[in-house]
Amino acid sequence: MKLLRHGAPGAEKPGLLDADGHVRDLSDHVADITGDILSPGGLARLAALNPADLPVVQPDRLGPPVAGVGKFLCVGLNYSDHAQETGKEPPAEPILFAKATSAICGPNDDVQIPRGSDRTDWEVELGIVIGTRAKYVDEGQALDHVAGYLLVNDVSERRFQSERGGQWTKGKSHDTFGPIGPWLVTADEIADPQALDLWLDVDGERRQTGSTATMIFGVAHLVSYISQFMTLEPGDIIATGTPPGVGLGMKPPTFLREGQVVALGIAGLGEQRQRMVQA
Amino acid sequence: MKLLRHGAPGAEKPGLLDADGHVRDLSDHVADITGDILSPGGLARLAALNPADLPVVQPDRLGPPVAGVGKFLCVGLNYSDHAQETGKEPPAEPILFAKATSAICGPNDDVQIPRGSDRTDWEVELGIVIGTRAKYVDEGQALDHVAGYLLVNDVSERRFQSERGGQWTKGKSHDTFGPIGPWLVTADEIADPQALDLWLDVDGERRQTGSTATMIFGVAHLVSYISQFMTLEPGDIIATGTPPGVGLGMKPPTFLREGQVVALGIAGLGEQRQRMVQA
Repeated sequence: MKLLRHGAPGAEKPGLLDADGHVRDLSDHVADITGDILSPGGLARLAALNPADLPVVQPDRLGPPVAGVGKFLCVGLNYSDHAQETGKEPPAEPILFAKATSAICGPNDDVQIPRGSDRTDWEVELGIVIGTRAKYVDEGQALDHVAGYLLVNDVSERRFQSERGGQWTKGKSHDTFGPIGPWLVTADEIADPQALDLWLDVDGERRQTGSTATMIFGVAHLVSYISQFMTLEPGDIIATGTPPGVGLGMKPPTFLREGQVVALGIAGLGEQRQRMVQA
Repeated sequence: MKLLRHGAPGAEKPGLLDADGHVRDLSDHVADITGDILSPGGLARLAALNPADLPVVQPDRLGPPVAGVGKFLCVGLNYSDHAQETGKEPPAEPILFAKATSAICGPNDDVQIPRGSDRTDWEVELGIVIGTRAKYVDEGQALDHVAGYLLVNDVSERRFQSERGGQWTKGKSHDTFGPIGPWLVTADEIADPQALDLWLDVDGERRQTGSTATMIFGVAHLVSYISQFMTLEPGDIIATGTPPGVGLGMKPPTFLREGQVVALGIAGLGEQRQRMVQA
């Protein structure tokens, strides 16, 4: 299934994308797409519906496909070739940081360049969505806790991230720095999360090209690893790091300007498109 | 007002502490103590109630006084004398990091020492609770966005924080690493947030003694500063840093063991007491 939320910001309704690419409304069946419906039982109830019986809608906007996200965790330097472009050693264990959940926005919403920013950058990433509570989970069982996957643009302000006090959260959390979606693709539709192609364009020029095959720490390892430090709860999102090609790694480093358009995608997870605006 | 939540974990009911120290139930007036009732209007509606008309309850447990916290932000090294004990320079601007909201627990709940931890440490802190949305707020208006204050124990695993991959979140986010409360004291009852005494004992021995007067960056500055990087939303909590006396700063460094009891308090904000258990 491809679950989504459609409608105006803050007033989104639940829906799904059917096999023909139509948005179907789920409002008669669930109040919203939140952690509690992402359990195996909750997803099974939705999967039992016949999409053809659901009303077709033509939404003006898609919202973030998950509401009420408790934690938006991110993994840093998780592609060996991206670690290289930043001039850093590949990490010995996953680097973990948090993005404010207030940064979450729809896949095609405008992205705000913060006031005083001159280094707003892009990062296409595979996002994991947790379906069932995970604490001290072994790697072998980790994927059982994953409801599905979605596309993430881990928008980052490099100066805020690295030159304003030492912790990355500051450069990762501005409003609209977390476009997610267009949909949450349930795990049963993703045969191998370590074999997905990723790409990102700025104004039509290809900037990032990669595959989740070159992740240093894969999805199962990340879920197991993070669950040693905190409980992962249904609806939590883990952005798993970005492949090479971010603006910081260009020669010379190149960052986003007002009016530019970023487009990105992951095979099987859909595409995003954001216009840069000034905050 | 002193707002609180009472009852079993996950099933807390809203309440307040009256002038005689009795817990009064607010279930007939609000569904819960969440961000949306922390606005000036929401608080005024509660303040208009006569506590003597509310049912007295004798709860077995107090929960965290705010539910549905979106962000749990923390400021590092924000007392000049604490910065000194860690051997670090006082920061030029606030150091910001995020604690997982899943770490939040009641003020007297058991605190779990994570598996593999040998450096679980304590930090008594003043917590700010946001009442109205704050983005790009000037320091002069910042306190208008504060609903109130509460006591926080920013429990920390020092090895996870500093030796496991570079970002502090990993050592700050274990379940139960965020006891808050016993109550949220509305801002009108705190004449000066920069003149509050703090203390913390381990097994009855005084470890931390301080005053918010020695903060490097005060409450108004922190709210304004953080609002430059992200929107602060009603119910968000900012833990403002800890005074000297953490275990990491002792000679030799001394950390928490199973069975020990931590007690802490801030003048006017109440006290907490936690027993250490093994996760």
